Amino acid sequence: MSRGKLFVISAPSGAGKTSLCNKLLAKYPERLRYSISFTTREPRVGEVDGEDYFFISERKFKEMIDNEEFLEWAVVHGNYYGTSKQVIEKHLNDGYDVILDIDPQGARQIKNKFLDAVFIFIVAPSIKELKNRLINRRTESMEKINLRLKNALEEIKFFKMYDYLIINRFLNVAFEELDAIYRAEHLKTKDIDDIEKIVDLEV
Amino acid sequence: MSRGKLFVISAPSGAGKTSLCNKLLAKYPERLRYSISFTTREPRVGEVDGEDYFFISERKFKEMIDNEEFLEWAVVHGNYYGTSKQVIEKHLNDGYDVILDIDPQGARQIKNKFLDAVFIFIVAPSIKELKNRLINRRTESMEKINLRLKNALEEIKFFKMYDYLIINRFLNVAFEELDAIYRAEHLKTKDIDDIEKIVDLEV
Repeated sequence: MSRGKLFVISAPSGAGKTSLCNKLLAKYPERLRYSISFTTREPRVGEVDGEDYFFISERKFKEMIDNEEFLEWAVVHGNYYGTSKQVIEKHLNDGYDVILDIDPQGARQIKNKFLDAVFIFIVAPSIKELKNRLINRRTESMEKINLRLKNALEEIKFFKMYDYLIINRFLNVAFEELDAIYRAEHLKTKDIDDIEKIVDLEV
Repeated sequence: MSRGKLFVISAPSGAGKTSLCNKLLAKYPERLRYSISFTTREPRVGEVDGEDYFFISERKFKEMIDNEEFLEWAVVHGNYYGTSKQVIEKHLNDGYDVILDIDPQGARQIKNKFLDAVFIFIVAPSIKELKNRLINRRTESMEKINLRLKNALEEIKFFKMYDYLIINRFLNVAFEELDAIYRAEHLKTKDIDDIEKIVDLEV
């Protein structure tokens, strides 16, 4: 079995990343896995340990940092979040592709360590549209929304770090594009070592 | 209007290249053009000048060589075949993507001149399958078919020169893959100079 591919996906809140990733996972359940992060924050209502996150104590998290078990980690609002090397490597070595949903700072850390990862950035067609989507969610204050828009503007500046940019104007079109990237990336000749393993050259 | 992209496609005879290219041209008639070659050979029955080839005299062809009007040219069985720089550049500058259907020798000449072209190689899943397809066409002698198989084996060795490899086991799947490559290549961040031209960053 050949090793899987790592797909690193970033997007500002409201760009539609979660919907797009879930659609891709639903289309390829037998070959694609979602990378579950470790965190020290408390589970929210409905969140399941080992599905949404691995919820661990700060002591355990710091132990993992000391043991260099993280591919990347960060502190956000006082909580730790990290991606386990071992979890990703296990999936890849088992032949699964992995989706890693992460912000540009995390993506940058991955980029230096996984030379063959595929980096995808997803954006809304405009900041105004992003604002409308966040407002329509009705889950956050305008203050929080404005902070998210400010972050989005910062994050978009890093788009060149990514291999691909998807503009999520219509979810179905954006999904076709994500799917196209996913399929095309599996057709690259650079990942083929021995052509005779995939094309029977016997006459 | 942004400049189009050049897609260079090679395949041994019988791999299904023509069907696949025609399907792609049919799907994107408004943005994709087929590069028509110049040749000195006689038109076959049904071939139309300016559609299948530009049929020109050997004297004219040699003039074009002298004037460096070809991106690449070759002599096959005593006939000249060539790709006009001007025709390709006009399509690209008009914003059309271009499909250039060419053998690996020609592709190699293009590779040195068009750094941003996309190179795609199409193969049958096996040489035996290729042989069956050529036999089923009932248009060529076994001698001719064996020569084609020998050429196919030679050409396949050059697959690493291409960016992508499509194995045409089933035409519909192979077409989805060609389409995926075509779409994905338009999402690459390396072709985006100014993000503000495609994402409205006004708050």
